[in-house]
Amino acid sequence: MLSLSAVLEPIHEDLVKVEDSLKSIREVHVNHLSELLDYSLGSSGKRIRPALTLLSGKLYNYNLDCLLPMATAVELLHSATLVQDDAIDKSAVRRGRPTVNDVWGEEKAVLIGDYMFAKAGELCASTGNLRVIKLFSQTLATISIGELDQAFNAFNLEQTREHYLDRVAKKTASLFMLATESGAILSQASERSVEVLREYGYNLGIAFQIVDDILDFTGTEEELGKPVGSDLAQGTLTLPAMLLLERYPEDNPIRRFFRNRGDMDNKNRVIDMIRNSTIVQECYDFAANYCTRACQNLNLLPEKASRQALMNLADYIVMRKK
Amino acid sequence: MLSLSAVLEPIHEDLVKVEDSLKSIREVHVNHLSELLDYSLGSSGKRIRPALTLLSGKLYNYNLDCLLPMATAVELLHSATLVQDDAIDKSAVRRGRPTVNDVWGEEKAVLIGDYMFAKAGELCASTGNLRVIKLFSQTLATISIGELDQAFNAFNLEQTREHYLDRVAKKTASLFMLATESGAILSQASERSVEVLREYGYNLGIAFQIVDDILDFTGTEEELGKPVGSDLAQGTLTLPAMLLLERYPEDNPIRRFFRNRGDMDNKNRVIDMIRNSTIVQECYDFAANYCTRACQNLNLLPEKASRQALMNLADYIVMRKK
Repeated sequence: MLSLSAVLEPIHEDLVKVEDSLKSIREVHVNHLSELLDYSLGSSGKRIRPALTLLSGKLYNYNLDCLLPMATAVELLHSATLVQDDAIDKSAVRRGRPTVNDVWGEEKAVLIGDYMFAKAGELCASTGNLRVIKLFSQTLATISIGELDQAFNAFNLEQTREHYLDRVAKKTASLFMLATESGAILSQASERSVEVLREYGYNLGIAFQIVDDILDFTGTEEELGKPVGSDLAQGTLTLPAMLLLERYPEDNPIRRFFRNRGDMDNKNRVIDMIRNSTIVQECYDFAANYCTRACQNLNLLPEKASRQALMNLADYIVMRKK
Repeated sequence: MLSLSAVLEPIHEDLVKVEDSLKSIREVHVNHLSELLDYSLGSSGKRIRPALTLLSGKLYNYNLDCLLPMATAVELLHSATLVQDDAIDKSAVRRGRPTVNDVWGEEKAVLIGDYMFAKAGELCASTGNLRVIKLFSQTLATISIGELDQAFNAFNLEQTREHYLDRVAKKTASLFMLATESGAILSQASERSVEVLREYGYNLGIAFQIVDDILDFTGTEEELGKPVGSDLAQGTLTLPAMLLLERYPEDNPIRRFFRNRGDMDNKNRVIDMIRNSTIVQECYDFAANYCTRACQNLNLLPEKASRQALMNLADYIVMRKK
């Protein structure tokens, strides 16, 4: 299996520059601020979203002067949503270490998230491209709607697959779309190519989230960097859980766990049942299907190393273990 | 004393349009979202910040096509910070009714705040003016830094007046500056005029916050729309409290209250001591001084009704009871 760093080889050097750019954001001379930013941005994220911006741009008139701030903005926006999600979910662990809210409290986590939104907006504005700037704000609005939908439907058993996919499109795929679309726009791609890359981002984003939701049940705590079954604990009904509910509509440990939220026996029973059923494979098939859709029009784009990287990334996303 | 509506008479009609524009933001066909927005935006705010944008613009090439979205963006940004502040402070009441977090929970309050930031960004982007767009993001970053500073210094007795003023400049005056400066920029004011209006916004913002901090001690619960002494309860040391600490450095009820945060006797003692001392007048003198500074260069601007309104607004801000 391809490693992520092998997949991203065509933009390796520029991803290092994104890392440098994230570092320079942390160098602020305000009490506590750089410490909070260091912690929020320093952990070992996969940087898939900025990679998408760079890979998309690499197909056309690649200009790092605007692609670099945009790629950094996309990663910052992503990190900001993670920090705030953990705060509002009161999650204690992410990527194998205490969350910002666990160390500094929820209040500061929300505020550092706001600061990161603002800095992301500033970086995006520095591209000088109004279309991309509008897209950025619209994406933050869409993500918030997706997260609100998730919050309003916590512990709600009456949700359909369509509902799940709509939510995933908003809370996850929208940012993947921003990443690819902005890369294409900033590199003067044709409208048709922008459209192809937007669709790629959409489908890849959905696939990515489905795999995330599978791993939340099948991964180990070490791989996940957080407890297994976190979504379920938050009352979030993801695809694997939905399929289990469809199979056993009446007597189902999810139903019992949602009724009695402290009952770890039922939570573990859900994890166990999903792991030992064909649901996992069914969900992977779903994700693989979205990856196929993601790639189906890539042949319309210039035949470059970064196009192959986008193909490989789709494979990686389904194969990944964390 | 001039009423606020009399002060804002020159832009009365256009403020109604801001209100309409805020209404149209609430008309979204997403479950729960419009309800949350209705509640967050529908309450009786004074709309001083959008008024500043319109009044500043009215001095030059007044073009509602970009001033209206900008004024709306400024108010949205303000409302978003209020909703999130209440959530992270766990405040139960604002403007005489339950806060968003009290009704829907902190999670949804933070998320609707994010959505409002995003919509404000979209509106600002729709002006097409890159300078104003950058200013908008920078302002959100500055406000977040001010709020973080407040959070990190909760219940800290070792704060100076300089520290207080620096925080107020960041968390409050920065938005007043955005309001006036964006109005001037979008109306093609000269750089000198932009500078004068920015200074006006800065000084007015500081005065506004000082008066807010006074009223938190001297107002009634009905006037304030929230409990008296809310700042103190949150551990926020404002100017009146600082002056009381300076007068009685050793045996001081603030010191005792910060040590034993549940002790309402000490909290009430602080309120009582401040009300019955010359501290209130001293703080008002401070505020009035900032208002004088706010207006000192306004004579450099065109002699129009809106210039007089800016003068009157400075008077109103010190006189207001809520």
